[in-house]
Amino acid sequence: LDEIDIKILKILQENAKQSLEDMSEMLKLPKSTIAYRIKRLESQGIIKGYYAHIDPYALDQDYIVITFVRAKYGKDYHLNLGSKLAEIPGVWGVYFVLGDTDFVVMARYKNREEFMKNFLEKLMSMPEIERTSTQIVVKTIKEAPNIVIY
Amino acid sequence: LDEIDIKILKILQENAKQSLEDMSEMLKLPKSTIAYRIKRLESQGIIKGYYAHIDPYALDQDYIVITFVRAKYGKDYHLNLGSKLAEIPGVWGVYFVLGDTDFVVMARYKNREEFMKNFLEKLMSMPEIERTSTQIVVKTIKEAPNIVIY
Amino acid sequence: LDEIDIKILKILQENAKQSLEDMSEMLKLPKSTIAYRIKRLESQGIIKGYYAHIDPYALDQDYIVITFVRAKYGKDYHLNLGSKLAEIPGVWGVYFVLGDTDFVVMARYKNREEFMKNFLEKLMSMPEIERTSTQIVVKTIKEAPNIVIY
Amino acid sequence: LDEIDIKILKILQENAKQSLEDMSEMLKLPKSTIAYRIKRLESQGIIKGYYAHIDPYALDQDYIVITFVRAKYGKDYHLNLGSKLAEIPGVWGVYFVLGDTDFVVMARYKNREEFMKNFLEKLMSMPEIERTSTQIVVKTIKEAPNIVIY
Amino acid sequence: LDEIDIKILKILQENAKQSLEDMSEMLKLPKSTIAYRIKRLESQGIIKGYYAHIDPYALDQDYIVITFVRAKYGKDYHLNLGSKLAEIPGVWGVYFVLGDTDFVVMARYKNREEFMKNFLEKLMSMPEIERTSTQIVVKTIKEAPNIVIY
Amino acid sequence: LDEIDIKILKILQENAKQSLEDMSEMLKLPKSTIAYRIKRLESQGIIKGYYAHIDPYALDQDYIVITFVRAKYGKDYHLNLGSKLAEIPGVWGVYFVLGDTDFVVMARYKNREEFMKNFLEKLMSMPEIERTSTQIVVKTIKEAPNIVIY
Amino acid sequence: LDEIDIKILKILQENAKQSLEDMSEMLKLPKSTIAYRIKRLESQGIIKGYYAHIDPYALDQDYIVITFVRAKYGKDYHLNLGSKLAEIPGVWGVYFVLGDTDFVVMARYKNREEFMKNFLEKLMSMPEIERTSTQIVVKTIKEAPNIVIY
Amino acid sequence: LDEIDIKILKILQENAKQSLEDMSEMLKLPKSTIAYRIKRLESQGIIKGYYAHIDPYALDQDYIVITFVRAKYGKDYHLNLGSKLAEIPGVWGVYFVLGDTDFVVMARYKNREEFMKNFLEKLMSMPEIERTSTQIVVKTIKEAPNIVIY
Ligand SMILES: [Mg+2]
Ligand SMILES: [Mg+2]
Ligand SMILES: [Mg+2]
Ligand SMILES: [Mg+2]
Ligand SMILES: [Mg+2]
Ligand SMILES: [Mg+2]
Ligand SMILES: [Mg+2]
Ligand SMILES: [Mg+2]
Repeated sequence: LDEIDIKILKILQENAKQSLEDMSEMLKLPKSTIAYRIKRLESQGIIKGYYAHIDPYALDQDYIVITFVRAKYGKDYHLNLGSKLAEIPGVWGVYFVLGDTDFVVMARYKNREEFMKNFLEKLMSMPEIERTSTQIVVKTIKEAPNIVIY
Repeated sequence: LDEIDIKILKILQENAKQSLEDMSEMLKLPKSTIAYRIKRLESQGIIKGYYAHIDPYALDQDYIVITFVRAKYGKDYHLNLGSKLAEIPGVWGVYFVLGDTDFVVMARYKNREEFMKNFLEKLMSMPEIERTSTQIVVKTIKEAPNIVIY
Repeated sequence: LDEIDIKILKILQENAKQSLEDMSEMLKLPKSTIAYRIKRLESQGIIKGYYAHIDPYALDQDYIVITFVRAKYGKDYHLNLGSKLAEIPGVWGVYFVLGDTDFVVMARYKNREEFMKNFLEKLMSMPEIERTSTQIVVKTIKEAPNIVIY
Repeated sequence: LDEIDIKILKILQENAKQSLEDMSEMLKLPKSTIAYRIKRLESQGIIKGYYAHIDPYALDQDYIVITFVRAKYGKDYHLNLGSKLAEIPGVWGVYFVLGDTDFVVMARYKNREEFMKNFLEKLMSMPEIERTSTQIVVKTIKEAPNIVIY
Repeated sequence: LDEIDIKILKILQENAKQSLEDMSEMLKLPKSTIAYRIKRLESQGIIKGYYAHIDPYALDQDYIVITFVRAKYGKDYHLNLGSKLAEIPGVWGVYFVLGDTDFVVMARYKNREEFMKNFLEKLMSMPEIERTSTQIVVKTIKEAPNIVIY
Repeated sequence: LDEIDIKILKILQENAKQSLEDMSEMLKLPKSTIAYRIKRLESQGIIKGYYAHIDPYALDQDYIVITFVRAKYGKDYHLNLGSKLAEIPGVWGVYFVLGDTDFVVMARYKNREEFMKNFLEKLMSMPEIERTSTQIVVKTIKEAPNIVIY
Repeated sequence: LDEIDIKILKILQENAKQSLEDMSEMLKLPKSTIAYRIKRLESQGIIKGYYAHIDPYALDQDYIVITFVRAKYGKDYHLNLGSKLAEIPGVWGVYFVLGDTDFVVMARYKNREEFMKNFLEKLMSMPEIERTSTQIVVKTIKEAPNIVIY
Repeated sequence: LDEIDIKILKILQENAKQSLEDMSEMLKLPKSTIAYRIKRLESQGIIKGYYAHIDPYALDQDYIVITFVRAKYGKDYHLNLGSKLAEIPGVWGVYFVLGDTDFVVMARYKNREEFMKNFLEKLMSMPEIERTSTQIVVKTIKEAPNIVIY
């Protein structure tokens, strides 16, 4: 990854629809070079895809939770549990952490009823779980996971 | 938002580069209808942008942290602190929660040194903070904040 | 529910014995209208009943506790436990919460002995419970659950 | 308080509109005796009033919270804080407890926005508070504070 | 218990060897009255005995601990455990409390080795225990359990 | 301290009124020897006094608390605070410990009102205190601080 | 151990290669005396060996952790667990402590992957463990376990 | 650092007095090569010195503590505090960690009195400290910080 790659990534992480013409002008490089490099970044798996950013609040997904999950201790429990948590509809983030909890789970639902039915009840029937604790997000101040180059 | 809008969003949240031709076929609708609706979703602010999804690990950003921040109690402290946290380079998520902590902060750095210099030292000089506690992410099992329609 | 309903409810939540005459005067409405609306609020289940408010302290019920109950993790455990807790004599409130505990239980007893025999010993033989922690209320500063319209 | 008083209270705590006729039959006592005793219970302050029980959920008050408040240490801080908490609109219960927190506060709001504006922001500007932690009630399993005789 | 009894108890709780002559003079009462009342306080079980107060530090018992014991949840577990804890040599106080722990245990040993062999290892083999946590006393500022009248 | 001293102490810690005759027989030693040794133990400060053991419950002192006190950090704070806590009427034990709290305080009161007035309000006006947490004792399973030789 | 021994130990704990000539001069004692005393300290087991002090950071061992391990309660569990923890490659310190955790474990690894494979996965398959919590060391400010005489 | 360096370090970390002859035989290399490489490892700072390992218990240093220190929040507080902690006699390890505490401090003393005077009182007068909590080590199961190559 050289400096030009970084510049290209920086543009695309904020606007995947930036035209080659504009990028060519911004970077003072021929369009073909930029096109070639983007292809390479894609084939190397550095660019994993392109997505539309939909506002969760606009879709009434305002019951946003961060749940801390403590697994029971035992071989492969953590491994299995991580995958199961990731498959729950509404869950968009699952992080395995060191510390008092094992997993930090990020999820969004339309309301309390959906949260209980789609999330909480599912968790309560997973035998690998020892304990969960849920924090309600009252305000999303920043959510820009697309920004990797800063 | 009718069912067609939802279908369009569902496609775009996973692949912003899906062609109108393909979408037309998938949804059995004329390309013009789809194009019109996408424009409308954009102008309504439901689609907030299009991003390239860059793999943080590919860029060696593997010092990933979740930090819990407790603000001092006082008028406007929480408001100010939220904005300040959001401006720290490397921070991509700031959530205001109810519970034992006030903010859950998500951030990525290349290594411990960067984390300390760019993040921890900045936090330590913010007078609104009473206490922080940081969890190191040892594995990102899922990170798909783009998936809003599920 | 229109504004008149709200005004009627506001009066009745504080004084269920307010006469139709007085209400008619306060609301500048015929008695028959008020009577009709009260009936409707009752049949809609918005007014669930009328209660005498008895002072617990006057009946020497001054061993007042708030108990936090943590259920074992397992399918239907929480559901069953909630009902069982609600049936314990002396328990007047059972709330299922998100966070470090699962249930917040409000109860009143005449003294420590009654509390131990009627409450604590019952809890200790419920297999769904992992842990309880009890806080003694030293002063009830406000207890007005009847006030819903404020 | 003799056994008859207790029986009268037990009836009225569940149905304040029970007629003297019915009570007379239930208790095998003349109506005048019952009427006299009710008056006495009222004048002694044992019956503090009569209220209609309104269903909070029917009024869309489903953002129900239990907040733990820790006061700063200092003369009269606890006393003052208790009164201030009790005056916040939406707060129906304030209990002063021994243990890791000082006050358990029960409150109901229509939604997150109301909760933040009417409750959380008020708390954040009270100088007597060191710390709060809020639990969201996901289900009210029992709420019958009227039941004092059991 | 009248005021004279209280005065007698107050003297004896600090000096069990106070002579009847002195007490007679202090209380302006005949010796026979005092002797009679002491006998009565003994036979009523108000005075449970007389003991010499030995200085633990003088006997090199300076490894003083306060241990918090959390019992497993289950019928009679707490009852049984309380008795078992009380029988451990070196344990002089066992209190059943409400809150995060179930028992507060006070004990004294000559040194770490004695503490481990006589106390900790015994606790570790009690199946009713879920968890213990021990605090080392670095200074006994006051220990006067004999003072009941103050 | 030889074995005979230990035997004498063991008798006196349980019964300060044991007669010299009985002790002489129990220990197979002349009364004069025993009397001499007791005097010596007293003058060495090993025996610090003789107390009547009064039953707190018989005197209606059944509001028994164990309070954990956390001092503010600062030079001499702990020293001063320890003495102040020891002087509160009703407090019979003050232990300076290592760990999450600084002082474990044992106290007895007749009821909640006495506890609040004589204890809690005093604590709340001590500027050296950062935080207290109180556990109510529901049962004293053992309280025999006189037993030093075991 | 007399004062000369202490002086010798003080020199050797910082520099095991100090020559007998230099030590002779520093301590004003014949070389033979010093040599004799060192031998004696070695044979008494007071000097347990001589080590090269290797800088862990120079060997890229900068993923340094302090892990708190809570054992399940049960006879010999703690004993067995202590030994098993001590045998894990990368673990250099295992301390059995009183308090909320049972073992404090110090370990060093080259990176997160090594830490997970060599340490965390091993812990997760030990049946004696109830819970672990890991703190990442961001800076080693002092590490001089060789300094015993100070 | 090649494989031969690693082998040399592995020998010296366990026995700094291993002779060149023995090492030559073990590694099948001329003594001069080994001598040259050791010098290089020393001048590169990879070998930071050689020390005698003295048994703390043999010197009666059996009051061993692990103290968790939480710093007040503020610019440079952590930096200053780390250095101050490292200078306290008896402290051999100071680690700056992420999580609920800021510093983990390892120290050894002869007894409680030394611990209080040399350590605890010093900490209590450091204005940068918000809170400490100390765990007593009851058994050192492993302490081999010299083992870096494993
Ligand atoms: Mg919603
Ligand atoms: Mg990296
Ligand atoms: Mg009572
Ligand atoms: Mg609502
Ligand atoms: Mg000792
Ligand atoms: Mg009482
Ligand atoms: Mg590394
Ligand atoms: Mg010692």
